[in-house]
Amino acid sequence: VINAGKSQHNEDQACCEVVFVERRTSPRGRLPSREGGGELDGGRKGFYFHYWALFDGHAGSGAAVMASKRLHLHICEQLRDLVDILQDASPPPICLPHDARASPVEPSRMPLAEDDREVPNDAVPRFHLEKAVSHESLVIGAIENAFKHMDDQIERERASQRLSGGCCALTAVYLMGKFYVANAGDSRAIIIRNGEIIPMSREFTPETERQRLQFLAFLRPELLGKEFTHLEFPRRIQPKELGKKMLYRDQNMNGWAYKKIEEDDLKFPLIYGEGKKARVMATIGVTRGLGDHDLKVFSSNIHIKPFLSCFPEVRVYDLTQYEHCPDDVLVLGTDGLWDVTNDKEVANVVMEVLTSYEPNDPCRYTMVAQELVVRSRGVLKERGWRLANDKLGSGDDISVFVIPL
Amino acid sequence: VINAGKSQHNEDQACCEVVFVERRTSPRGRLPSREGGGELDGGRKGFYFHYWALFDGHAGSGAAVMASKRLHLHICEQLRDLVDILQDASPPPICLPHDARASPVEPSRMPLAEDDREVPNDAVPRFHLEKAVSHESLVIGAIENAFKHMDDQIERERASQRLSGGCCALTAVYLMGKFYVANAGDSRAIIIRNGEIIPMSREFTPETERQRLQFLAFLRPELLGKEFTHLEFPRRIQPKELGKKMLYRDQNMNGWAYKKIEEDDLKFPLIYGEGKKARVMATIGVTRGLGDHDLKVFSSNIHIKPFLSCFPEVRVYDLTQYEHCPDDVLVLGTDGLWDVTNDKEVANVVMEVLTSYEPNDPCRYTMVAQELVVRSRGVLKERGWRLANDKLGSGDDISVFVIPL
Repeated sequence: VINAGKSQHNEDQACCEVVFVERRTSPRGRLPSREGGGELDGGRKGFYFHYWALFDGHAGSGAAVMASKRLHLHICEQLRDLVDILQDASPPPICLPHDARASPVEPSRMPLAEDDREVPNDAVPRFHLEKAVSHESLVIGAIENAFKHMDDQIERERASQRLSGGCCALTAVYLMGKFYVANAGDSRAIIIRNGEIIPMSREFTPETERQRLQFLAFLRPELLGKEFTHLEFPRRIQPKELGKKMLYRDQNMNGWAYKKIEEDDLKFPLIYGEGKKARVMATIGVTRGLGDHDLKVFSSNIHIKPFLSCFPEVRVYDLTQYEHCPDDVLVLGTDGLWDVTNDKEVANVVMEVLTSYEPNDPCRYTMVAQELVVRSRGVLKERGWRLANDKLGSGDDISVFVIPL
Repeated sequence: VINAGKSQHNEDQACCEVVFVERRTSPRGRLPSREGGGELDGGRKGFYFHYWALFDGHAGSGAAVMASKRLHLHICEQLRDLVDILQDASPPPICLPHDARASPVEPSRMPLAEDDREVPNDAVPRFHLEKAVSHESLVIGAIENAFKHMDDQIERERASQRLSGGCCALTAVYLMGKFYVANAGDSRAIIIRNGEIIPMSREFTPETERQRLQFLAFLRPELLGKEFTHLEFPRRIQPKELGKKMLYRDQNMNGWAYKKIEEDDLKFPLIYGEGKKARVMATIGVTRGLGDHDLKVFSSNIHIKPFLSCFPEVRVYDLTQYEHCPDDVLVLGTDGLWDVTNDKEVANVVMEVLTSYEPNDPCRYTMVAQELVVRSRGVLKERGWRLANDKLGSGDDISVFVIPL
């Protein structure tokens, strides 16, 4: 639902797709199978992944709309090189042979004393110390880099496509028996299994990422444009408090201590505010997501983007490790849901609604999603949108996916 | 025990003290009580804390010895300003009045338009946005800053005192009903309560702190001295592999992806190795602790210290939230213990040994500590020190505290 009628356009965007990842073909066979499978068949070789995503836009829906149309294609692109590797039970190769299609290494840059052109890949001598890398971590890396490529594309095309603002991104990729839940922003995913709540993401906000942001500002003070201090204070300092002692914390601290207020401390803090009101440089309330390349501190030339990260945290849930029943679900929601309905309440609605439908009724999951959205929005009364408990409903856009496991 | 006889001196050091924190007195009363307690009595006003600490030295015992003698005094010093505040049930003041003893603010730097000299502290207008700071977080901040002051003292006195090396530090402070467990390094603390294991620390190693270190190296490449790359690879790259694709990850990634090997990637990785063999710049296997100010990469002028942090992570355990029995304990151990005896095995030894002594026998906890140390060292056989399962015992120094809750 759109933020309780406050605006006409929905800044939440969503996507749900089944995507075919086609093995990349190349003249010489870019990634020869190590299973001795011989020559490539030239046909459509690959695998499918299932994909759900929520994009919570801010300062316009441009970035959210583009991400909803493209991010899965970037994930697909990153996975294309991995088609053979992921389908091969043996550990992923640490090093791949030369890429025939890529621009070749200039002979002059090749070390003269050594020549590996005739050494097959498997015969490369192994160092004793070699870290094992799992298939799972390759998929995680592919999703992480896909977010980066998506962000780069928004940056490149933002002028020509008139892409405004930025967006939080929460995606779920189902691939080869595992769910990969990637989150960049303040949306949230939980699994409800047999009534138990399993968190599948955490939120990235000025408060949860305070130390990373302070560390960056400490190392690159020029990013603060002489307007901000990297220290955090519990409230604004008044000029007349100079010389007094005030609570503060820096990038190294989780606790608080007193320091004598100096001139520099009168600057506005990099991180300021609490809960939903916490902001980076008084401007933005989330610290990860896509877009926001033009975002600046109001009436200044200070860019926010260096403090934002487009990289998600990816959590993995192995579906094969547990026997799931029809009531076990993965719930994705934007903050419009979670601001007014907590994990336990969501779990209760899930169980309540699912019980009222037959286990094989395919629309039962859609009904849960609808119920979650409607309950979080509330009902329009004289004093605005109200929840069942008469508290104010969510004034934000609300989007929910309920995915049976 | 000392590392199975390999060396003569013990690089593990320990300390156990009851420390009195005396309220700091000053001519004008530095921190007037807000409870209306009136004038100070001038006597010994303050409180006690109980303190246990383990210091696991490396490259000499100098830093560990000094830290074992001083760190609790630094904690005491940090707490001295908080004596009244911590004993006052109301929330800590955000801002304290001018410190009479400190050098006064120059009049010329005071804002002219405002004058607060006659405004009592409580009358300072509050901003609407004011973050609540708990007493607990003041103690955390005091311990964090005490570690920093300890590290600074080691830096200052290392030449005159001939302090060599560095040390991991694990401390437990019991104060006003709560345990504050602070860890900087790879020692570990767990609580065993009614047979259940509650982790009270996490380890800080090149692997667990990879992204922080890579982020620093990415922002400050000069710290790598042209010898190292901030990227991680699963193994060393050979010059002849230039142009091939190899698995890597950077400061933003948890997963792995392939990249084409360039000249720069042939440098040694900032983080290299796995498990106990992981190293920062091929030099050190822990990333937090005290000392190491002179530590450099072998036969180079590259300093390690900028990558190390002296700040601990502090976890709090509230003893008043649970009714404890005589078998509930806090166990502190250096990595010499945990390398060969895991949490569950430690819990089993604790329960086993405690059962064989009367609940009111004061030596029963000492016997647990002894048993843990002896079991982890093993018994000297023909093929070296062997555990009960015939595996090799810990070749490291082993120190254990078992503290009844």
